[in-house]
Amino acid sequence: MELTGPIVLSDNRYGKAENRIVRIYRDSARHEIRDLNVSTVLRGDFADAYVSGDQSKVLPTDTQKQTAYALAKKPGVQPVEDYALALAAHFVDETEPVHSARVEIEEFAWQRVAVGGLEHDHTWVRQGPEVRTVTVTVAGKGVEQRAWVIGGVDDLVILKSTGSQFADFLVDDFTVLEPTNDRVLATAVNARWRFAATSGVAWDEVYAGIRTAMIEVFATRHSKALQQTLFDMGEAALEAYPVLAEVRLAAPNKHHFGYDLARFGIENHGEVFHAADRPYGLIHATVSRQDAPPAGPAWEP
Amino acid sequence: MELTGPIVLSDNRYGKAENRIVRIYRDSARHEIRDLNVSTVLRGDFADAYVSGDQSKVLPTDTQKQTAYALAKKPGVQPVEDYALALAAHFVDETEPVHSARVEIEEFAWQRVAVGGLEHDHTWVRQGPEVRTVTVTVAGKGVEQRAWVIGGVDDLVILKSTGSQFADFLVDDFTVLEPTNDRVLATAVNARWRFAATSGVAWDEVYAGIRTAMIEVFATRHSKALQQTLFDMGEAALEAYPVLAEVRLAAPNKHHFGYDLARFGIENHGEVFHAADRPYGLIHATVSRQDAPPAGPAWEP
Amino acid sequence: MELTGPIVLSDNRYGKAENRIVRIYRDSARHEIRDLNVSTVLRGDFADAYVSGDQSKVLPTDTQKQTAYALAKKPGVQPVEDYALALAAHFVDETEPVHSARVEIEEFAWQRVAVGGLEHDHTWVRQGPEVRTVTVTVAGKGVEQRAWVIGGVDDLVILKSTGSQFADFLVDDFTVLEPTNDRVLATAVNARWRFAATSGVAWDEVYAGIRTAMIEVFATRHSKALQQTLFDMGEAALEAYPVLAEVRLAAPNKHHFGYDLARFGIENHGEVFHAADRPYGLIHATVSRQDAPPAGPAWEP
Amino acid sequence: MELTGPIVLSDNRYGKAENRIVRIYRDSARHEIRDLNVSTVLRGDFADAYVSGDQSKVLPTDTQKQTAYALAKKPGVQPVEDYALALAAHFVDETEPVHSARVEIEEFAWQRVAVGGLEHDHTWVRQGPEVRTVTVTVAGKGVEQRAWVIGGVDDLVILKSTGSQFADFLVDDFTVLEPTNDRVLATAVNARWRFAATSGVAWDEVYAGIRTAMIEVFATRHSKALQQTLFDMGEAALEAYPVLAEVRLAAPNKHHFGYDLARFGIENHGEVFHAADRPYGLIHATVSRQDAPPAGPAWEP
Repeated sequence: MELTGPIVLSDNRYGKAENRIVRIYRDSARHEIRDLNVSTVLRGDFADAYVSGDQSKVLPTDTQKQTAYALAKKPGVQPVEDYALALAAHFVDETEPVHSARVEIEEFAWQRVAVGGLEHDHTWVRQGPEVRTVTVTVAGKGVEQRAWVIGGVDDLVILKSTGSQFADFLVDDFTVLEPTNDRVLATAVNARWRFAATSGVAWDEVYAGIRTAMIEVFATRHSKALQQTLFDMGEAALEAYPVLAEVRLAAPNKHHFGYDLARFGIENHGEVFHAADRPYGLIHATVSRQDAPPAGPAWEP
Repeated sequence: MELTGPIVLSDNRYGKAENRIVRIYRDSARHEIRDLNVSTVLRGDFADAYVSGDQSKVLPTDTQKQTAYALAKKPGVQPVEDYALALAAHFVDETEPVHSARVEIEEFAWQRVAVGGLEHDHTWVRQGPEVRTVTVTVAGKGVEQRAWVIGGVDDLVILKSTGSQFADFLVDDFTVLEPTNDRVLATAVNARWRFAATSGVAWDEVYAGIRTAMIEVFATRHSKALQQTLFDMGEAALEAYPVLAEVRLAAPNKHHFGYDLARFGIENHGEVFHAADRPYGLIHATVSRQDAPPAGPAWEP
Repeated sequence: MELTGPIVLSDNRYGKAENRIVRIYRDSARHEIRDLNVSTVLRGDFADAYVSGDQSKVLPTDTQKQTAYALAKKPGVQPVEDYALALAAHFVDETEPVHSARVEIEEFAWQRVAVGGLEHDHTWVRQGPEVRTVTVTVAGKGVEQRAWVIGGVDDLVILKSTGSQFADFLVDDFTVLEPTNDRVLATAVNARWRFAATSGVAWDEVYAGIRTAMIEVFATRHSKALQQTLFDMGEAALEAYPVLAEVRLAAPNKHHFGYDLARFGIENHGEVFHAADRPYGLIHATVSRQDAPPAGPAWEP
Repeated sequence: MELTGPIVLSDNRYGKAENRIVRIYRDSARHEIRDLNVSTVLRGDFADAYVSGDQSKVLPTDTQKQTAYALAKKPGVQPVEDYALALAAHFVDETEPVHSARVEIEEFAWQRVAVGGLEHDHTWVRQGPEVRTVTVTVAGKGVEQRAWVIGGVDDLVILKSTGSQFADFLVDDFTVLEPTNDRVLATAVNARWRFAATSGVAWDEVYAGIRTAMIEVFATRHSKALQQTLFDMGEAALEAYPVLAEVRLAAPNKHHFGYDLARFGIENHGEVFHAADRPYGLIHATVSRQDAPPAGPAWEP
């Protein structure tokens, strides 16, 4: 097929990615820390920059960086969702060519250390691998302006050593997998939840509560497949927080293969496993409230 | 806001990610190698697996793996696009609950080594960091079946030491960046191009040709901004191959900051740079033919 | 300079790296998990394999893998140090050409999840980024056999938001750094401690105790430089456990630069920082007991 | 065992790691690029900084950074070995407490792009994954000063699809590996070669020549094991360049397992492989001239 139509710019966006902002609150002897990776993305009237090289409507990505650091002082980053909303609104409100702004934040957790059994005022150790995420989109000027907040977690690595099966699946000519009624189930949950509100939410508490709800259902409910477990986790989050409109989950099945020790005359009843790297199953699920408000541009990258 | 509607599964998909398949063609003394990372994703009638744990319609991800390796023997992976089309069609054709299948492939390049100035028959060194990508979607059964092919490249790292400026941009209260009329421009191009056809294309030649077209325009056309350069690169690809419907580009601005040596009484006229890691500008552009056929599900993840 | 002497094999070793062994203890309803990355290295009478290709004295790395998994069942990996000693001794005792064996283990930590406030029997979440390490060397046959144990931690990422200075340093023509009396001090501690014994040590307790001792001194002692802080941490470990012969520490100075907001009329008194990636200071220290027994081959790679 | 002796600092060193220096030569229209990752390490009279926090003899790592960038302008980085020698000597010569300095450099390769078949003046694409390394040590003041140069390569990924076997190895109770007379042999060579001279060497030519010598022997000589192949590669480098004193090689055996397609009635005669991630064999060899001059501190980290 030969296309002959004119060549056009059909979509564009740009921003500054991965500003590594660390904010210390030191108003009292007991300091607080928020450790962020902040990315900003602007959409708007930027076609000239691409098509003719005219930069007159382009706010430099360096300026976006300066702004991200400046607003980390005031209004500050506590809670992170309000910071993201303020930063995104700043670009839309103060920069004429910007139609919408997206702020994506990873927050790295730090745990206050104990000294002699007491929490220390200004020392922490990093906790991971899990990372909390916040994604905010602000679109429109003045009274037309709307906003969306998506929370999330990446790399919540979780494992159960029993209470998981995989059997009674479809079989074809290439199926050699044996069904199993007792296996290790391990994954690294990547989840995103869309809020139906942008204010009046106890952001930090809700994050902790969703995490707990998902972990508890993973632990306690028997798994017939990772698919079922993901659905259950999304459902648990929605049930726990009616302010949530939908939850999107992506989870690798981190295979733990029982190691064949029978060759050596050794019994292995679910005790010795090889943790494989690649390939891995990859399961996606979206769980929603049927009365969820429209997502608008919330999920646009 | 409190949502009270029923909780439902609104979307799902699953597959086997990152099968590391290496295929050697050894029909003659001069071997050929194709080194692939193959991921498969299925969509279809899988809701029961999520909602009630019923796996009877689920083709195991292990079976998807076996199939990917089996089809690498025959029909083989030469060219990769035809392999991806065959593998995706296999799942849709042979597995009743599957409505559509997506196959995503990374191909790692190997360069035949020279021995005494002559190409060796069966030894290669890896070339990188750039990676060729192929993404195929096959949807629908029988005469309804349709297919889409997207080619691409990741991490084509390219740098020009002059012929790039950034000036006359928008200025606000947080703008401290100085305009420059001569800078290093470096990026790692990630591009995807959608074909308007699924057969009759010389896949390997077109890949090489698009790569050359993009590199040549990067090298020779003066850059007023990375935005402009990306548009030019997408346009060049479309102009070179009328079978292309659109090109999507994402490119970090890998900042090279001129190092301040004046403090030490040393002149630095664009000679010594610090290559920064983070943050970085991140620019996106989509360049299209206006008469491009509809994308359908081609870009769905 | 032109060398004309004969070319010889002057050193060699080989092994199987990164066996990802997960061991579940399920003798009661309350399971236990140990998640390991096990590497084995053999030294011995292997020159023929290199020089003439004669493999008759080479125990395949595949066999080393099988052995690592088999011994993970019995004697098991609880504690990891005893497993490493048994695995290394197995190779030396059972394989005639092996003169010495080294086993290097990374252990990944899992935290038992809470459900309704109670610890769950068989579900955990991964904890990181820190990784516990164990390195064992066993050399010699029969009564000549000796062994060494080195414990350690990698990527113990720790940060204090005050109580750190860097001033009164050496100044030369290239010194532009300003002294500071209040800065963020952050690092990722990589430490190794050599034990003066191979038995009679409460390995898991000692690991936890060394970690606590190092963290407490990092938190509470004012730092004049990362050098001083590392020495203090090593000293604290040695003081806490007289069974330790020496501690080797390597620590990047993860620079947190106060962000210049004065340009925007905003005060920044140690509140907003940029966490830099590269370059970074890198400090090494070895702290020893003067009456430490000889290290022998303990530190040989 | 309880140790009671005094606790002392027994070894130390410090420096600035990973300065990402890009040097453009633009004296003519045809530019040249050298892209470096430079780390500096100092040893000397620094005990007070560790033990008592006295920084008066400590040259800040920030100053080391400034110096690395300044010397990249002049004398410049062409060839890299001379730059490393000059930078290391600078620290020893100009900073009284420094007894020895080590400079470690990774060089990333760029290939000049072609435009219309002709090499372009100022545009390149990155080549990898292989990285050239240079390590220089300068020790001692004035006429006592000595220097050592080590060249090397990391991640030279090389594969042969035939001409490799592994058979007639030692067998024990845990050996299940089948011997093979035709397999894929793949590795990522990490090599270091110590020069017997620090001047009068055509550094860039010798690097290219060693690389070629190693590749040619890998390609053409039948392999009875990776051990033998590594020895052959080291020997070939030493034979090609009498200025080399020794070569140290470390190479993972990147296993390519023939995929079992017989289960599906499909023949697989060394055509379809699974490229495994972990575990992997890891082979080390040191090949030396017997009349090599002493290594001194050349290999100290």
